[in-house]
This record gives sequence, C-alpha cells and structure tokens, in this order.
Amino acid sequence: MPELRKDPVIGRWVIIATERAKRPDEFKHDKIVPKGGFCPFCSGNEDKTPPEVLAYRTPESHANGKGWRVRVVPNKFPALMIEGGLNREGDGVYDKMNGVGAHEVIVETPDHSKSLCDLTAKEVEEVLWAFRDRILDLRKDTRFKYILLFKNHGAAAGASLEHTHSQLIALPVVPRTVHSEMYGAREYYNFKERCVFCDVVRQELEAGKRLILENADFAVISPYAPRFPFETWILPKVHDAHFEDCKTNEYANLAAALRTTLRRLNIALNNPPYNFILHTLPLTEKSSPYYHWHIEIMPILTRVAGFEWGSGFYINPTPPEDAAEFLRGLASED
Amino acid sequence: MPELRKDPVIGRWVIIATERAKRPDEFKHDKIVPKGGFCPFCSGNEDKTPPEVLAYRTPESHANGKGWRVRVVPNKFPALMIEGGLNREGDGVYDKMNGVGAHEVIVETPDHSKSLCDLTAKEVEEVLWAFRDRILDLRKDTRFKYILLFKNHGAAAGASLEHTHSQLIALPVVPRTVHSEMYGAREYYNFKERCVFCDVVRQELEAGKRLILENADFAVISPYAPRFPFETWILPKVHDAHFEDCKTNEYANLAAALRTTLRRLNIALNNPPYNFILHTLPLTEKSSPYYHWHIEIMPILTRVAGFEWGSGFYINPTPPEDAAEFLRGLASED
Repeated sequence: MPELRKDPVIGRWVIIATERAKRPDEFKHDKIVPKGGFCPFCSGNEDKTPPEVLAYRTPESHANGKGWRVRVVPNKFPALMIEGGLNREGDGVYDKMNGVGAHEVIVETPDHSKSLCDLTAKEVEEVLWAFRDRILDLRKDTRFKYILLFKNHGAAAGASLEHTHSQLIALPVVPRTVHSEMYGAREYYNFKERCVFCDVVRQELEAGKRLILENADFAVISPYAPRFPFETWILPKVHDAHFEDCKTNEYANLAAALRTTLRRLNIALNNPPYNFILHTLPLTEKSSPYYHWHIEIMPILTRVAGFEWGSGFYINPTPPEDAAEFLRGLASED
Repeated sequence: MPELRKDPVIGRWVIIATERAKRPDEFKHDKIVPKGGFCPFCSGNEDKTPPEVLAYRTPESHANGKGWRVRVVPNKFPALMIEGGLNREGDGVYDKMNGVGAHEVIVETPDHSKSLCDLTAKEVEEVLWAFRDRILDLRKDTRFKYILLFKNHGAAAGASLEHTHSQLIALPVVPRTVHSEMYGAREYYNFKERCVFCDVVRQELEAGKRLILENADFAVISPYAPRFPFETWILPKVHDAHFEDCKTNEYANLAAALRTTLRRLNIALNNPPYNFILHTLPLTEKSSPYYHWHIEIMPILTRVAGFEWGSGFYINPTPPEDAAEFLRGLASED
C-alpha cells in the first residue's frame, strides 16, 4: 500500500510509492518511450489495460473490445490504491495515512497518430464528457475529497506513453495548491463581496490586451502573472464553482475553446510539451460564491530551478501581453 | 525594468523579465551549453563578468584579476535590477511593483574542471563564508526582505553555465514558499512551544533510520516526506534561525557535511543534476524561537508533471529510509 506522508512544517503531502520502490541505478538513464512500439491504448489492445470503467462506444460493440471513441481505464501502475481505509496515524512528530485513492487514464481517441488538438471539436467534447462522467461517479465515494484532472503532453511534461491521454487522481485530502487558491479567492470575496475570477474575466474582456479568444461561454486569456511563457487559462464567463455542474450546452463551447487554444499553441511553439490542469472546487463543498472553476494550460519551455523551488516565485521571459497578441494573431489558422 | 506581478488569487509573485522578452521561436530548441567553449567564470576571464563584489584572493592579487579562490559577481543577465524604488501600484484587480533586487553569482573555484564536491573541505568552507559575507552586506539595504541562496548543478537542474557556481537573489518581498514554511513552523510552536525542526532533528538522531551522517554541529537526513528520490536535508543540531548568524567554528563542520553529502549523492546517482536551497529566516525578522535554518538538496531524477503542478502533492518512488540506508552505506568512500 503506498503511504501518504505529510511534511511536518510546510504541510505538503507526499505519496511514497513503496510498491514500485526504485534503487539508485534505476534513475541513471532517462526512460525512453518507444516510438512505434507496442501501445496498450490502441484499439485492439483493450485486454492489455485493466478493465474499462467507462467507454463511449458504437451500439454493437462490447466492453473491453474495439469500437470505442473515448475509453477510461484504471492506471496499471497507480500512484494510489482504490481499496482500504485511510488509517491516519502519527509517528512521533510526523503524520501519515494509507495511500487510498483512484488513478485513472482517459484515452482520448483510439487513433495513436493523433494529439488532442488533432481531434474534431465533437471528439474533444466527448473527452470532456468523460471527465464529467468520471467525476460524477467517483464523487459518490465519500472517502474522496478532491479529484485532480490533468494532462501531460510530451515526455518533457511527464508523459510516459505517447498515445494521447489525460489522467485523474481522486484524493482523500484536499491538496495544498487547491487550498491556497481557495484561501486567496475567499479572502478577496470577504473583502469585496465579489468573485475574483469573475472580476478577472470582466477586466480581461474589457481590456483585451491579454485576451486570446472568447466564445459565448468562455474566455481564453494569458493570465496577468503567468509562471511560464505562453501559460494560458480558460475561464467560464458565468460564475460556476464545479466543472461537473456546467450546463450541458457549455461543453461544446468549452471543447471549441480548448481545441482552438491547443491548436494555436501548437503552431506558435511547434508542438510544445504541455500540462493542463482542471481547477475545480473540492467534492466536499456544495457550491461557492468565491470559487470559479477553470483550466490552466502550461507549455513546458523553461526549466524550474533552485530559485523557483526555493521561493515559489517564477521568472517568465515572455510578458503575457506579447503571448496573447501572438496567439490572437493566429486566428486565421483556426 | 523587470516587473513583479502578483497573481490575484494565489498570491504568487512572478518576475516578468521584460528586458529579455522571448519570441515564440526562441523556445523551439533547447539551448546547449558549449562544452569546452569560452567560459566567463574561468581564471583569466575576469573582465568578461561585471566587476566583482567580493573575492577571496592571494594578498598580491588585484580586484578583477587572477589570484582568487572564490569570486562573487553580479549576474550579467539579472532577473532583478539593483537600482530604483519599488513603486507598488494596482492595475484594476491586479498588483505590481518594479523588479528591484540583487542577483549575484558565486563562482566557487577558478578551476573549470571541478564540481563543488571535488573541492577540499577548506575550499567548500570558503564558499560558505562568501555566502555569509554577501548576506551580511546585502542585508544593509533595507529594500530587501529576503535573500535566496541556491545552486543549480547540471543542465536538467537549470544551470546554464558549466563552471561550478551558486547564485543569490535578494528580493523586496518575502517569497510565499518561505512564508508557508514560517507559518507551519509558527503553528507548531504555538501548539507545542517547541521548534518543529529541533523536534525533527531529535527524532531523526534517535531513530537513525533516515539519518545519513552527523558531526558535532550538523545532522544530514532523508526527510520524512521527501518530494524527490534522495532529497537530503542538512540541519544544525542547535537551534538557530539565520544562516549568517552561525558561530564561526560551525562553518567548517557545515562544509564537511555538505561536501560529504554531495560526494555520496554523486556516487549513488552518478553525478546527478541537483538543486540546493538555503532556507533561512527573512532579513526582516531579528530571530525566532520557531524557525531553524537548513539546507535542502534535491537531486533532479524525476519530472514534475500535471499532478504535482495541480496539487502540490509529490509522488516519490524511493522511500527515504531506503535512500538514507544507501547513502549511509557509502561511508567508507568518504
């Protein structure tokens, strides 16, 4: 069973993945993802993954066979285990608990040759529906406090398989990054009685200089204080705390915004590695006037080094106004 | 002038380095550090850096000439500028100020072929004295609230020049990572009336299973909840909040502990890229019963990806007890 351990000072949780402990010599060479080798996410290899927990398929197809468009399976090497209780306990000055949680992979298409941005808007929308359906299912399990949905694209962004996929990890605690974001948003709300994200959307739509694109439901912006060059956020225009509570018709517009954004980043930065992360309210909160779900996309172009680790500051060589102007200029390519 | 911008939600500061703004195509290829090419940090090339702010030299040598053992120079491409006032101002919902600060490079040896761990204990001690002397000098400037001292070793850890060096950045605000650490330590102190770091040192010395080495003044441990495989911390055994207030005789023991630790990591992980960061109390605080300075060394063996970015959680495949056992086992090589 993996162990969740808490740093006694900074409160940071760490998953000690005891099941797959690594000896020093196992780090000596970067693992290489075989190009064109065997791929467990390709159509026809469904038996090489754990049984699917969700798939959108043609009516005549069967579970764990061909004929799917989006398929969700448990991670074969999960960071957390679905079985068991938390068993929180102390160890002198320290705290730990069992590494209980869910770790799933959302395979976004059966086609190995495509990236998420190569899919049609309709196909991207189905990926978003899969995110939603999995959250709705997992939130029934009261052990889980937060579901983190993210994508690692490219080896430099942490992807270990080439076939395009996203991941979700259901956690038994609300992570600190989410806590900090909620805390900041709550402080602002307490002072202003307005949602800070709503204020950001309003200001960015009005100013326009950091706006990349918008549609009826979403604004895509270069944030004012981006950690990374070409960091890009997608925010709903109307206040909503939980991604999974979006109105049904909003997913099509979100898919369009996400797809166009990824396509433009792809052109601007020549298929960059990137991470995207869904920021949404914890499962433990019913709704919130101060929190506003959104997606943060971070192209990985620079390295995080000692300064960033030590300070939580970032040095960004590209002003967001320049990035937004460049990405706006690619509108004709959509 | 670089701009310091604050994220309005999470309170994270970002340095927008407007002077060296990058266009999208400048990220397309990883910069390669030329091996054996021209090096501005080598003895004889002193005129290729900004004039030195400190050097330990032979009595007959001259400033900005040969004959130094450790040399500190302003960064030629500083993230922050030393001149000017902060000029804090708002921009709608956002906050910014001028990127005022100091950014210096500590060249640890004139010998290009050596790493920090190849130096003698006496030479490492001089590097630590240089850290101290620069902090004592810069803290006279009341614009600065914190001095972050760190080292990036190897390209994967963010080093852009091969010649071994550390860096310091003097900041006009206390960084959030430092705030979080102080906050956690203060909470613990308020509850227990003991320093959490003192408790950690006591428990680790007693238990021994995460202890790597110790000498009269320092304990070197694998922390209980390490973010990264083989993450290693060096803590003073006796409570002290500021690195620069160490007793004179302690620097020799710190140099010995740091050098031995780096040498063992070097053997265990085959010259890994690493960052180390000095954690010390802000300049604005006189002393503290709850904060305890220390050094955190992080070998860069795994990648930070979407999960870590989104949660602040880390997945570590090497239990610290295994790492400590392995590093203890290298004692005969010292």
